[in-house]
Amino acid sequence: MANPTAAMLVIGDEILSGRTRDSNMHFLAGELTKNGIDLKQVRVVSDDRVAIIDAARALSDTHDVVFTSGGIGPTHDDITADCIAAAFDAPIDVRDDARKILEDHYQKSGHRLNAARLRMARIPDGATLIDNPVSRAPGFTISNVHVMAGVPQVFQAMVASVLPTLTGGAPLMSQSLQVFRGEGDIAETLSQFAERYADLSIGCYPFQKDGAFGANIVIRGQDGTRVDAAMTELARALAL
Amino acid sequence: MANPTAAMLVIGDEILSGRTRDSNMHFLAGELTKNGIDLKQVRVVSDDRVAIIDAARALSDTHDVVFTSGGIGPTHDDITADCIAAAFDAPIDVRDDARKILEDHYQKSGHRLNAARLRMARIPDGATLIDNPVSRAPGFTISNVHVMAGVPQVFQAMVASVLPTLTGGAPLMSQSLQVFRGEGDIAETLSQFAERYADLSIGCYPFQKDGAFGANIVIRGQDGTRVDAAMTELARALAL
Repeated sequence: MANPTAAMLVIGDEILSGRTRDSNMHFLAGELTKNGIDLKQVRVVSDDRVAIIDAARALSDTHDVVFTSGGIGPTHDDITADCIAAAFDAPIDVRDDARKILEDHYQKSGHRLNAARLRMARIPDGATLIDNPVSRAPGFTISNVHVMAGVPQVFQAMVASVLPTLTGGAPLMSQSLQVFRGEGDIAETLSQFAERYADLSIGCYPFQKDGAFGANIVIRGQDGTRVDAAMTELARALAL
Repeated sequence: MANPTAAMLVIGDEILSGRTRDSNMHFLAGELTKNGIDLKQVRVVSDDRVAIIDAARALSDTHDVVFTSGGIGPTHDDITADCIAAAFDAPIDVRDDARKILEDHYQKSGHRLNAARLRMARIPDGATLIDNPVSRAPGFTISNVHVMAGVPQVFQAMVASVLPTLTGGAPLMSQSLQVFRGEGDIAETLSQFAERYADLSIGCYPFQKDGAFGANIVIRGQDGTRVDAAMTELARALAL
């Protein structure tokens, strides 16, 4: 059976302007692979209402599960919650369960739950909250979309809250082999292997290191024994 | 006048599986910002023919210029050139000008221009070549799409080859201010600023460092004097 498919939507002008280097995509990709969920597409869009709504709908329609990152804080440029509500035609307002979490948190920390912070309790009707053990303000899940913060520590904590609720497939096994030969020298051998092991994915990723050219060959598949067999045979075929 | 808009299409299973952390997006974003071109969207898709063709068409239709990264090497999983040709209904085959570049290169380096390496001379009809001073195998431009390698050194060299051919707008000026206060404390002030300086973009990016919470406030705009004035006023408004 095929694994469930996932997409990610990263929201943020700061990534598209080059000011911030996103790290959530790489983190989520690794977590999903470990859990047998295939990340098929990532989109990064700006803090723009139409762009967010269009991307959320498109990705939700074509994948089993969608994760968003960014734009759910207290400032004027945090418009993700309202856009995701609009994408699913759901009303959105400050919700009592989310407000309670923020009240408890700010009371303990001695800060004021002002109007700006209360924006973080805006949750669409019908959504369930995602626990945020780091800074309390919750994410939420509506339909097949999990809406999470952009700050990496918070994003990672929210992913940990969500993952156990998802049904994964068989985790992908992989083995890699580093060869210090030009990609063009090994391409024909690899191509024959890819045909013969059609159930496995065989990738070749060139690199340059200290002036030397080489490639990492990665064999991936759900059957560890088969990945093993293919890698053993490949190593033999490429031996000088 | 509004700046030209750009999109980026990153092709590669190795990014979506979490094996490799992409760095080309962050590099391109910074270069485009410096040159007054607004990066509006990035998509990352897998080594899948339909996914690449669909994304290339969608991004080309809705942006002034598109940059792709990855999938133009000699191995069986390098299918980008053929997919981009298909996206524009252009025939594709080994082209003499590209073959000549590879022949010269491999002759000098003492390698054989075998069938696999010759794949890198497959260029769509009507495309112009993009110079690759690092490893010679060229990228190409067809319609408004620039097709480039995924290896960061080669990608960066190709971006340098392409940028002077593009018409940019006014480069975006930015200033940032780091404040060690909770985002929720400054959100109301920022919101008023964003309304008053509607011609500028005012972003707020929270961080946690050594247990302290704070935020970087970034003001961006094409008029440096105006960015300056807004930042001076904001710093005064936020002073304790």
